[in-house]
Amino acid sequence: MEETKGKYAADISSIKEAHARIKSLVHKTPLLSSTSLNAMSARYLYFKCECFQKGGAFKFRGASNAVFSLNDEDASKGVVTHSSGNHAAALALAAKLRGIPSYIVVPKNAPTCKVENVKRYGGQIVWSEASVQSREEVANKVWQETGAIFIHPYNDARILSGQGTISLEILEQAPQIDTLVVPISGGGLISGIALAAKSINPAIRADDAAQSKAAGRIIRLPETNTIADGLRAFLGDFTWPVVRDLVEDIITVEDSEIIKAMKLCFEILKVVVEPSGAIGLAAVLSDTFQKNPAWKDCNHIGIVVSGGNVDMAMLWDSLNKGS
Amino acid sequence: MEETKGKYAADISSIKEAHARIKSLVHKTPLLSSTSLNAMSARYLYFKCECFQKGGAFKFRGASNAVFSLNDEDASKGVVTHSSGNHAAALALAAKLRGIPSYIVVPKNAPTCKVENVKRYGGQIVWSEASVQSREEVANKVWQETGAIFIHPYNDARILSGQGTISLEILEQAPQIDTLVVPISGGGLISGIALAAKSINPAIRADDAAQSKAAGRIIRLPETNTIADGLRAFLGDFTWPVVRDLVEDIITVEDSEIIKAMKLCFEILKVVVEPSGAIGLAAVLSDTFQKNPAWKDCNHIGIVVSGGNVDMAMLWDSLNKGS
Repeated sequence: MEETKGKYAADISSIKEAHARIKSLVHKTPLLSSTSLNAMSARYLYFKCECFQKGGAFKFRGASNAVFSLNDEDASKGVVTHSSGNHAAALALAAKLRGIPSYIVVPKNAPTCKVENVKRYGGQIVWSEASVQSREEVANKVWQETGAIFIHPYNDARILSGQGTISLEILEQAPQIDTLVVPISGGGLISGIALAAKSINPAIRADDAAQSKAAGRIIRLPETNTIADGLRAFLGDFTWPVVRDLVEDIITVEDSEIIKAMKLCFEILKVVVEPSGAIGLAAVLSDTFQKNPAWKDCNHIGIVVSGGNVDMAMLWDSLNKGS
Repeated sequence: MEETKGKYAADISSIKEAHARIKSLVHKTPLLSSTSLNAMSARYLYFKCECFQKGGAFKFRGASNAVFSLNDEDASKGVVTHSSGNHAAALALAAKLRGIPSYIVVPKNAPTCKVENVKRYGGQIVWSEASVQSREEVANKVWQETGAIFIHPYNDARILSGQGTISLEILEQAPQIDTLVVPISGGGLISGIALAAKSINPAIRADDAAQSKAAGRIIRLPETNTIADGLRAFLGDFTWPVVRDLVEDIITVEDSEIIKAMKLCFEILKVVVEPSGAIGLAAVLSDTFQKNPAWKDCNHIGIVVSGGNVDMAMLWDSLNKGS
């Protein structure tokens, strides 16, 4: 077993504790498979459908772990975060279940359906500009005024541990999985998943699938420190070390590949996914993956379908472009 | 236990035999639930997602049971059927898995995606006119020429038994279910489900949900042309007695209610459904159901989401109309 205890913000113990804390709150999402998609990828694919999670994305796992970790005094002041969407809705829902207020700083360019989700779950919307700086300033102001506890979307040990519970489920549902493909953004999802998966099965491979622009930074990372610094800012202090040490490879895909993968999810899997939710399938079907001998031995691949919150007008445009 | 053995075309024994025969071939589809939809319906709803079944609909259960029931000599000549879609694809797939030919008589007005499914699974398309008479004539001609065994879409004991396997799964996945709401068309689905469910739990209620005009057909058999293309059939000699004796009630819904339910499946459940797949949710949310004191005690409702094969252009039109 790989020794990760104490080395990172989370470990298998904190992930198991998170699981015990949240398992009655979260959906144990199903693992779907499709003979057609297996044939297309020449692999066995197992889709972990976090689009069916409460709030429509995996984010509820971390958010509920964070909210239900708080002591009563801290919790009574409520929670605050800034997020472009899924973490926002997830935190609002977790706070609602605990009966405490949530203040959600949302950039003005957030997709309508995600803002609607926050409102549906009783979150109090506080608008900011789109920039990270504006979001952080507004969140800080809310904290000063209310004393609400700040829950970062990914750079938080409780969040990492919550997202890691996916590994506990997926490796119980399909122990034959030898590879996990996970979308990366802030790194909370892949960090939690990699920490738990490597602890359960050290031989497992965790790859991330990223959209080309974001991933361009990651892929050249071993070569230059300056870009690594940029990545560190982009990931987080808590997630970067995990990604650096435990994630084996990075697969980058183009927008057009994501759109094609969304269409396949929709038409063949019958699952509604958002673009980042389809990125894992896009990666596995890409030439980068299919033609690289390094991935030849990946036979049983768990793909984390991270979320399904998509504006329908946007979805339709995407599907038409991909056809 | 209600005595159904020998009385109808199928019974709990034939359904259990079917389950043993097909369980390695079919997906054990997940049961999804949603707090939001529970709140909307003031019930606990359990969605049995047969849209994730192979071929995109429950029909593969009956088709694979029929095809794998054949002796080798009969099977070698292949199978033939006429169907507006889902049974067609399901039979083609089952035949492919057994390595025998399938001849599928398809009416010219069938949705494109359903025809594509038949082709994808290697079925040989034989076109007919839209009328039932034309379909039967063409199927008969294929039988005379090839000796292929005719497998009726629903009026067949093997089909009933295959569809009944849904009950075995759903009542194991959620034994607290007290009511099942099932779309009705030819009656193969509801007959199989009702036979198994009533045998496992005689107190259970089986209701069918029908688009209003189609439901009229059960009583008076008029012409129909509904958005729910999966529901354009007649009940048969084998299914009618079961529906008559074991199905407690019929809930009729309008097209507009089906479209609204499709939108909810899409936006909240994140599941792609065809119109007939959404009809159970439409029924449970309808005034007919909500305001009728007879259904007040139905607290834990299993809803069979029968299929997810939908043309996207059609889906988009429907969703826009429903908003």
